[in-house]
Amino acid sequence: MLDDRRPTRPLAPDFADHALNGDPSLALRDGFLTATWPDGLSGRFHALWLRENEVISGIIDPVTREREIEIDRFDPGLSLVSADLTDGPAVEIVFSDGHTARIDPGWLRSMAEGRWHPAHDIPEQTPWDAAGMAEPPTFDGPAVLTDDGALREWLSAAWASGFARLRNLPTAPGTVQRVGERIGTVRSSNFGFLFTVETKPDPDSTAYTSVSLDGHTDLASRETQPGLQMLHCRENSATGGASTMADGFAVAEAIRTEDPDAFDALTTLPWVFTNRHRDSDYRFSGSIVETDSAGRVVEIRNTGFLRFYPDMADADIPRAYRAAQLFNAHCRSDRFLCRTPFTPGDLILFDNRRMLHGRDSFDPQSGVRRLEGCYLDRDEILSRLRVLAR
Amino acid sequence: MLDDRRPTRPLAPDFADHALNGDPSLALRDGFLTATWPDGLSGRFHALWLRENEVISGIIDPVTREREIEIDRFDPGLSLVSADLTDGPAVEIVFSDGHTARIDPGWLRSMAEGRWHPAHDIPEQTPWDAAGMAEPPTFDGPAVLTDDGALREWLSAAWASGFARLRNLPTAPGTVQRVGERIGTVRSSNFGFLFTVETKPDPDSTAYTSVSLDGHTDLASRETQPGLQMLHCRENSATGGASTMADGFAVAEAIRTEDPDAFDALTTLPWVFTNRHRDSDYRFSGSIVETDSAGRVVEIRNTGFLRFYPDMADADIPRAYRAAQLFNAHCRSDRFLCRTPFTPGDLILFDNRRMLHGRDSFDPQSGVRRLEGCYLDRDEILSRLRVLAR
Repeated sequence: MLDDRRPTRPLAPDFADHALNGDPSLALRDGFLTATWPDGLSGRFHALWLRENEVISGIIDPVTREREIEIDRFDPGLSLVSADLTDGPAVEIVFSDGHTARIDPGWLRSMAEGRWHPAHDIPEQTPWDAAGMAEPPTFDGPAVLTDDGALREWLSAAWASGFARLRNLPTAPGTVQRVGERIGTVRSSNFGFLFTVETKPDPDSTAYTSVSLDGHTDLASRETQPGLQMLHCRENSATGGASTMADGFAVAEAIRTEDPDAFDALTTLPWVFTNRHRDSDYRFSGSIVETDSAGRVVEIRNTGFLRFYPDMADADIPRAYRAAQLFNAHCRSDRFLCRTPFTPGDLILFDNRRMLHGRDSFDPQSGVRRLEGCYLDRDEILSRLRVLAR
Repeated sequence: MLDDRRPTRPLAPDFADHALNGDPSLALRDGFLTATWPDGLSGRFHALWLRENEVISGIIDPVTREREIEIDRFDPGLSLVSADLTDGPAVEIVFSDGHTARIDPGWLRSMAEGRWHPAHDIPEQTPWDAAGMAEPPTFDGPAVLTDDGALREWLSAAWASGFARLRNLPTAPGTVQRVGERIGTVRSSNFGFLFTVETKPDPDSTAYTSVSLDGHTDLASRETQPGLQMLHCRENSATGGASTMADGFAVAEAIRTEDPDAFDALTTLPWVFTNRHRDSDYRFSGSIVETDSAGRVVEIRNTGFLRFYPDMADADIPRAYRAAQLFNAHCRSDRFLCRTPFTPGDLILFDNRRMLHGRDSFDPQSGVRRLEGCYLDRDEILSRLRVLAR
């Protein structure tokens, strides 16, 4: 909370109250304000950025904490005239257009040295193979439902490894939604808001049969594959049906090293994926492995049962098949596969755009296997981790 | 429907019955089957693709129409031994592994010459400027609610121009959902399933105030911006508050031609966008204009009031600001802006990842301005257009 013995500090635009950690020294150079705190932490802030990020004069609205003035209302040649620490405390900045801004120094500190970046304080995504993953990272379900520290540990593990499990949850319908709402907004899809994975008459997906499912991402036929998926085991008296998981990022990196031609085919040759039913015909053309402009693997799109047509020159088709065969064989291999039984009360959360999830076949005559699932966008984990860290 | 005087034709895996259009002539060469119909239409199909796309022997499941056999179960060196048209009619194919497949020739025809592609029969996205768009493409709302032909016309126009309007709709709450369900699955977000745009106490977005909103995409702080947005005007007795729309693809193309350095900055220099509230902290780093590997503009990410921090080298910050200023000034200019009043019963559907939508400020003392909105993924339009074309 603000210290009410002092004059009121300028509002920070991120809904948090920031520790001051002493008075920063301020210097102006090359269009930047540099602030350096007594402990050595330092931040550089550009004149134009400072000009459009102040709450007090309504440039950032004090309620929504969103900007009310558009970027092209400022002179692009704007410069800094002076910056001084004043009562509040506040960093008081005078600009070449005559405007004076007052900004919270604790907030500037909270932005220093990359703290503004989406990746700040988010665990690294760490590829794994079977040798390093005997079973999923596992946490206590009831604790996650009520304790923020337990939630943070589970989500951190799920982000780092691409998946993490809860045990000992209730088996009531809707439990998966309760867990989902601990994270963020549950997202509806063409399979509904919550979906039940069990054998169904007239199934519109292979998921709703008892056959084995090789490792796959869900909804590869959609432009935006769901980011996160949760599957909660409500009932399992059937023989078979173990859950399988492989890390698609690890498989892709292994192929990058061991078979560069296959990696090139996986990252540059698109396939059309499709899911058709009586009232829908979703199609998307994308490569099995997507890399970003820096060449990092950022997404896997691989649903064997939705892969439809090779969207490439005829001459590339044989090498595209060879590469897809290699990728899928790896995902099924002892080298990469983590296989675990599903016990009632278990819930698995995974990154659907990274992990290949599957199941062994099961005998629908031997008993009932019933999972309840839902999707969330991938960045819901990140938002929740940031809020928990405030 | 199938002609029951003939032996049953093989099932097609896309839930449609296909016209035969005569008997194709069949030829094998270089690993491909080439089929040519009497009217000259021709299709080439690779041996491996044919091997894994047959319904009759359960390679494609006859109920889900999804593949039950994984890609690496086939010999990658597989070839075609023979292909003949037989009773059914069916194309009977013998492979080098001894398997014989029977495939519907009408289905093969339906896939010929790029008919398998997601873009087939989908209208081109056509950039527009203000000179070419005096007002939004406009259609009758009640007709779209009941008539599939009217729905198809409206969606085709919305896809081509990035937006299209309905008029004369009821003003009851939930109308936007009724219209959404004519298209596909309505998608929930951190602003809920349906959202009401009106002035609110303690707003978590500038949208919920009465200030003007410059052209923006929604939810630029999310990894996946919503694809489609609909806004339905339920009430408007306030002074001001006209709707504005600019085509971000057209603005980007103009800048590509007229100011290549600005285009480079817009496509290669990322900004962090953020939306923070008491229970959320969404952040995403992305460029304002996204191009695909072929250099085509495919997405705009531009919410001035969520733009947070330049995620780039210090030296690039001034040119990033200059480029963002130019982009936003264009979006607000008479050259690109289409401005229309919102009348109760109007609904506007637009591609949120292409269009910059905004509004003029309004006087909340003069009356009530109440819109109801929702999001859908972009490919829901495409799925609906394909189903309507069956």
